Order: sequence, then C-alpha cells, then structure tokens
Amino acid sequence: MPKITPVVLCGGIGERIWPLSRKSYPKQFLNLIGVHSPFQQAATRLADAASPLVMTGDEYRFIARQQLNDAGVVNADVIIEPEGKNTAPAILAAACHLAAESPNSVMLVMPADHFIPDASEFTRMVKEAANHLSVRQIVCFGVAPERPETGYGYIRLSEKENVITPVAAFSEKPDLATAEAFLADGSYLWNSGIFMMRAAELLELAAELQPEMLNAVQQAILSSSKDLDFIRLNSLEWSRVEAQSFDCCFMENATEIGCLAFTSPWSDLGDWQALAREKEVDSSGNVLHGHAHQIDSLNSLLWAEKDGLVLTGIGLNNIMAIAMGDAVLVADRARAQDVKTMVTQLKAKGVSQALSCERENRPWGWFETIARTEAFHVKILHVDPGGRLSLQSHEHRSEHWVVVKGIATVVRGEEEFLLHANESTYIHIGDKHRLCNNTDDNLEIIEVQTGTYFGEDDIERFLDEYSRR
Amino acid sequence: MPKITPVVLCGGIGERIWPLSRKSYPKQFLNLIGVHSPFQQAATRLADAASPLVMTGDEYRFIARQQLNDAGVVNADVIIEPEGKNTAPAILAAACHLAAESPNSVMLVMPADHFIPDASEFTRMVKEAANHLSVRQIVCFGVAPERPETGYGYIRLSEKENVITPVAAFSEKPDLATAEAFLADGSYLWNSGIFMMRAAELLELAAELQPEMLNAVQQAILSSSKDLDFIRLNSLEWSRVEAQSFDCCFMENATEIGCLAFTSPWSDLGDWQALAREKEVDSSGNVLHGHAHQIDSLNSLLWAEKDGLVLTGIGLNNIMAIAMGDAVLVADRARAQDVKTMVTQLKAKGVSQALSCERENRPWGWFETIARTEAFHVKILHVDPGGRLSLQSHEHRSEHWVVVKGIATVVRGEEEFLLHANESTYIHIGDKHRLCNNTDDNLEIIEVQTGTYFGEDDIERFLDEYSRR
Repeated sequence: MPKITPVVLCGGIGERIWPLSRKSYPKQFLNLIGVHSPFQQAATRLADAASPLVMTGDEYRFIARQQLNDAGVVNADVIIEPEGKNTAPAILAAACHLAAESPNSVMLVMPADHFIPDASEFTRMVKEAANHLSVRQIVCFGVAPERPETGYGYIRLSEKENVITPVAAFSEKPDLATAEAFLADGSYLWNSGIFMMRAAELLELAAELQPEMLNAVQQAILSSSKDLDFIRLNSLEWSRVEAQSFDCCFMENATEIGCLAFTSPWSDLGDWQALAREKEVDSSGNVLHGHAHQIDSLNSLLWAEKDGLVLTGIGLNNIMAIAMGDAVLVADRARAQDVKTMVTQLKAKGVSQALSCERENRPWGWFETIARTEAFHVKILHVDPGGRLSLQSHEHRSEHWVVVKGIATVVRGEEEFLLHANESTYIHIGDKHRLCNNTDDNLEIIEVQTGTYFGEDDIERFLDEYSRR
Repeated sequence: MPKITPVVLCGGIGERIWPLSRKSYPKQFLNLIGVHSPFQQAATRLADAASPLVMTGDEYRFIARQQLNDAGVVNADVIIEPEGKNTAPAILAAACHLAAESPNSVMLVMPADHFIPDASEFTRMVKEAANHLSVRQIVCFGVAPERPETGYGYIRLSEKENVITPVAAFSEKPDLATAEAFLADGSYLWNSGIFMMRAAELLELAAELQPEMLNAVQQAILSSSKDLDFIRLNSLEWSRVEAQSFDCCFMENATEIGCLAFTSPWSDLGDWQALAREKEVDSSGNVLHGHAHQIDSLNSLLWAEKDGLVLTGIGLNNIMAIAMGDAVLVADRARAQDVKTMVTQLKAKGVSQALSCERENRPWGWFETIARTEAFHVKILHVDPGGRLSLQSHEHRSEHWVVVKGIATVVRGEEEFLLHANESTYIHIGDKHRLCNNTDDNLEIIEVQTGTYFGEDDIERFLDEYSRR
C-alpha cells in the first residue's frame, strides 16, 4: 500500500479570530495551542506519511517554508497559486501534481487551520479509511456533534454498511433549531472538511464533472515554473480557471462518497468561542490567557497577547476581550461570528489593523515598527541565520543601524564590513546597502530611519535572494 | 477688597480612572477635556485672582511647575509637602504662607482634578461669596444634584437667609436609597470640596480646634527651605504633623459655615462614569473616544487612548473599555467604583502598570521605553528647550544616541560637542556623560541601551540641575 500524501490547503485568513489572525499572518501560522502552529500540526499530523504537499498563495510562501523547516519537514513541495481560486482548483492542481509523480497516490486533503490533539488516533483512523477506500470513492471525515453548532456544515449518514458509511446528504450551516434537531437525531456529523481520495481517480472524476476546470488546471501545472524551492503555477493559465469550491463541484455531485467518524476531539478553531473551548477554564467559567486579571466575572474570555500589556476585567458576564498592542476587541461572546463583520467594516474604513500585524514577516526574518512619527521611524529587524535583505537604496530616508544581538555583514556603497553587537553604522539617503546574517545565530538590529517618507515602497532593489520584485 | 488666592490641592492619584490615571502621572495633569489639564484649569479658572498657591508632593513638583508655565502662570508659589498628610495640614500650611504675606488674604481652596466648564460664571459666583463672607466664616460651594449620586458627600442647607445659606449638616457618601431621598428632598447639595475663607481667620480657628496641628505646621513653614523655585516644607517638622482631613477637623466643628450653590455645571471627574458624562454620546448612548468602532452596542464607553491603537466593540451593553498600549480595562459600567479595587489588586501583585505610565516624566522632559528585552532597551528621549539631564554614568549599560529632532549638546568624558538631527554617538559603559538641549526647540533622541541591567537605579549622578539625589 502506498504512503498517504497530506495535502495542506493553506489559504485562509481566519477573520473571525481577529485581531489575533490577520491577512498578513493568519491563524494557521500562529502558535495558538501547543508549540506548533495549526499549519505545522497539519503538515506533521499523519504518521508514516509521504512528504506533505502544501497549496498556498504568493504572500504566504516564505512563512509556509520557514514553518515547515522549523517543524523539521524538509521535503515538502509547496505549490504557489498565483491567485485564490477557492478549493476545487487547488485540490485538482494537487491531484495533477501527485498523479504525475505516482498514479496510485492517496491524497489526504486537510485545511491548515484545524486542531486535532490526538495525532496517533487520527493516524489510526486515516489508515483504516485508506484500507477500506473503494474505487473512485471520496471519503470524508465527520465529527460526532457535542452541541448544536451553527457554524459548521453537517453530513447525514445512511445506514451503516461497513467501516466507511455512505453519505446520504450534506447540509450547509444550519440555524439553531435545525442544529438542535440534528444533534437529537444522531445520524448527523459535523463536516470536518478533511477528505481522502486517490489522486488519479479524482482526475477521472473531474474529467466527467468539471472537464473545463480540469483542463485549465492541467495547463497551469504543465506550464508551472520553479521559483527558488517553490512550484509556481502558470499565472496566465491559472487566471482562466473558474473559482469554485470542492464541495460544490465534487462532494455534491460525486456518487461514491463515504464517511468515517472521528473518534477523537477536533476543532476548526473557527472563532473565539472555538479557541476558548481549547483553553483552561476557571471555576467561574472564565478563560484567562496571558497577563490577564479579573474581578467578579463569569464565563468571560480575557486574552492578552502582548508582553508588557495587562488586561483587566471587572463584573463581566459572557464577554470576550482580546488585547494586542495595536488592536483591542471587546464583544458579547454570543456575537463571535460577527467579528468578521467588524473586520469588513474596518477594511472599508482603511484601518490598517484589519489586515496587517505589528510584526511584518519577510523571507529573511521579520521587522516591527516600534515608533512612528512624521520625522522618524524606529524598527526592530530580526534576521534569521543565513537571511539576506536585498541590496537596496532609499530615496527619502537615511538609516542608522545599531546591532543589539549577533553579527551583521553590512554592504554600504563599495564597502563590506562586519558589525558586532553594540556597534552601529549609518546609511545615507541614496546609498546602496545590504544587511546579511552570515552566521548560525539570530541577528537583531535597531534601525532608526529619519527622513520625509517611510513607506515600504521607497525601496529600489538591485539584488534579491528571494526573487522579489 | 483684596484679590482672592486660588489654593490648588494637587496630591490625588485618581485611581478610579485607571489605567488613564496612574500614580506616576495622575488625572489632574492629563488632558482629559479641552486643551488644559484639570490642574491647569484650576490654577487659571478664577479671573482677577492673585497668583495661585499650589500644594503638592515631591513627585509632582516638576510636572506642576511645567504645567503652570505652559498655561502662562508664572508667579505661582509651589509648596512641596515632604509626605502626604491629608487635606487639613496642607490647607493650614497654605494659610500660614498666605497670612504671612498678607493677613487679609482670602483663600479659595480647590482640588486640582475637577471640571467646571463655565469659568466666568464660576468667577461671578466666587466673587459674590467673597463679597458676603462674614468674619471667620468658611463658605463651601454646593452643586444642585442631577441624579442620586452615591459617589459624593452632601451638604444639607438650613432655611435660606442671605446670599450665603447656613449649612445644617454634612453627609458622607450615601447609599442609593438615601441618595434618592436627598434628591427628592431638595435641601441637599453635592459637596464640591471647594471652599473659601480668610487665611488669618482660618489660623485663629485652627488655634482653637487643632492647636497641635497648627503648631507643627507653623514649624514646618518657618523652617521651610527654597529648593530651585519651590518652597520645601521642613520634612522633620512635617513628619510630626498628624494626617487628618479638613472636613473632619474643621467643617464638622466650625460654627460659621455657609454654602453657595453652583449655578453652572461641575464634575469631580471621579470615575469613568463621570468622565463619560462630559463626552458626546451617540444615538445609542455610546461614547467613543479616540480610534474606536462599535457594532450593535448600547450605552457603552469605548476609550482608545493611544495613537496607532484601534478599539472595537460588538454587541456590548453598558460596558466600558479603556485601551492603552500597556493596559486595558473592560468593566460593567455599574462597577465603575471597583476600578480602585482592581488597582489595589494589581499593586499587590507587583504589576507595574498599576502605578507607572509608559511615558515617564522628568524635569528635563520625558522618556518612553518602546522596546524592552533582556539584551537591549530602546527609548525615545524628549528634552524640553533648556532641559539638561544630569551628568551621569552607568555601570551596566552602553548607550547609542541617534538625534532625530533638534540639536543636542553632548558631554562625553572630557569632550563636549553638538549633535544635529540624523547624527549619532556612543556612550561606553562607565563613561561620564550628559545630554543637554541648549536651544529653543524640542530635542528628540532615540536611545538604544545594550547591556545586562537597565533599571533606572543604574545611574550615578555627578551634577544635576534639578537637585535630584
């Protein structure tokens, strides 16, 4: 039996757990529970698996690669979708890629942002499904409902025939009365969004159900290019692909669909309620995360995310408060679904925190702006071992660098020199310069920018390790 | 008729409007409403007045002097109480000081943290009181109650005889039922804590009612010393003074007490409810201050205090949320009084935000720590025109200075040199150094400290303009 290939879909934004999750660094990459991010957990969850295949967008490629490396996953292929086209094209692209390598590949498709604490039970179950997978069958994984949840889709099972039970129908997110009826009925499971199929057979199915989509996806794969260690789908071909969900195109139309019920806990970490459920609760039903204190509160969530920030609550009842250095959300917990609406409104108002985090990630590490005035900005730059910023110049700002940790290799004009901790240098407006970390330890620099304009677009790049334009 | 001297009592901490008000920079100095702080408003409120006399503690002397200067008050005497002794000794000290200068002085004693928007009506009323002030009379100012307030003391009036009505009794903060009865009764006023008396007559009264206290206070005044432009009470004599409230010692025992009712709005800005009352309310009863957004909320207060921080609320009802960069408070508005309890608990737990602000004030300006790690700290230093840091050295840290605004005069070892915007220098561990702003413009510096210990106590001072030890 061939190894199973985890296919990790890594494109979501997790808006319902804003302000923690933002477009610039969404929840699948955050250390929400445990030492690994949900993405890292998804990539490593299945034991005895083939190397995972990651489907992601341009903006997350370096984060995904870095997190794979940090989790010890060295051979994963990462396919870059030039634009988001929903799940069906992404999964077909994965199937094309896998079927070309090995026609018998079994794909286990998983969203990158779920939490499944018991990986060994998960592995046991997935292997059982693989052992019973019939020809052209799609096996989805259901979760026995614990509550009348209105935030999930449901799977109605037919009579049980075998290990894998045929699916009678899928239901979209229900209203509360329907969810209560589903819970009482007993033949409904939550749809985990995880499923398994043989790659080559999925392509056969697509040839029948979605021939145009399949054709366009195949072209995008055939004309894909290598970009560093990523596989970049051809953007012109990919632009022709129609955006559609896998549920819509395949789940609702395929005839051979089975379901296996999860026998261990699962969460989609979909909103603050889901996240709170995974945390320790005190005797009054409160969840306190980080530096949080409360008096006389009930069933409330106080989540302080930043070092040096204290969050306090008095007399709260069923309130959630999430505090970060640049954004705070306070809401009735019953309104957890409406966080998305708030993010939409903030985006419409041009509020930067709707999309961007204080810490901005780059392929070489990250930076954080710690002071921002009209006359100067101050940043912390963190350069990973081996990280190299582009050779660049600025038209509107000078930069002072003070090394506070590690050893920097600095190129300035025609010079190249080392700068140790507690040494500094100055980059004049217009000077070509480059900052590299040629050591095995982290490099940290305080950068003081002075000038008239500090936008990230005031960079002229001459050379870049990461093929950025 | 002599001019009236405003005596401003400036010692409170305003714990009930934490996290905005903290011990290191309490509410009387904050720009809560309008362009001036409550302290500045108190010092300038009365038209045609003598120069104000300010009673304050050691830790607020420079803030008070700076704020007086900024408000254009140049001749105020500022008396430093070496330790807090409650209101009676502070007011007696003021009376001693004023009576010595001019025996007919009329004192108008005011807490520094109140809000009285109509200064001209206030002036009219105070002058009317002064015109009718009888011998040895204490005139207090009452406020017609607008609601059954449990946070204030009350004054019960006798039958009206004249412009000034005799006081029948004072009541401590009542419970709600009593407050409702007071409101219905009509002969009760809120006690504003402001009162007027002739300084020399107060001393006569004190000689009868509090001879020991008066004696000790007189000794502290007689042996006071000049410290820069402050008057510092003798700390040994002052330590002998018993701490007591003016209400307890005098209001409850004096026979000649009259009251004039305020005919214009007044607030003690005593808690978040009081502060919210002075702000604009939307059609759903919400108050939004700073960068705040809400969805479907009622009667809630969202107060974002920091630039670059967005505060958002969803589905809130009668909730208050106050967000700063280092501390967030979320509370049921009915629990506004319990903010003090939270501060007490945070103090007991050693949480620095209970007492200290992000921005720390110094006689030469202020600094703010914008990054704090084990290996380095980064600060913004703001030096006022003419400001001079002490000549100092550090045992455990080096400092890099980058001037981002203005011109610095730097002393380093034996050298003295100018540093313009966009220039930098380095102070090695142990180097004697000094930073001065000898210009008429502000000076701003980014200071990167590297080392092993960054406490404010790692300063050896050799010379200091401000007589700090």
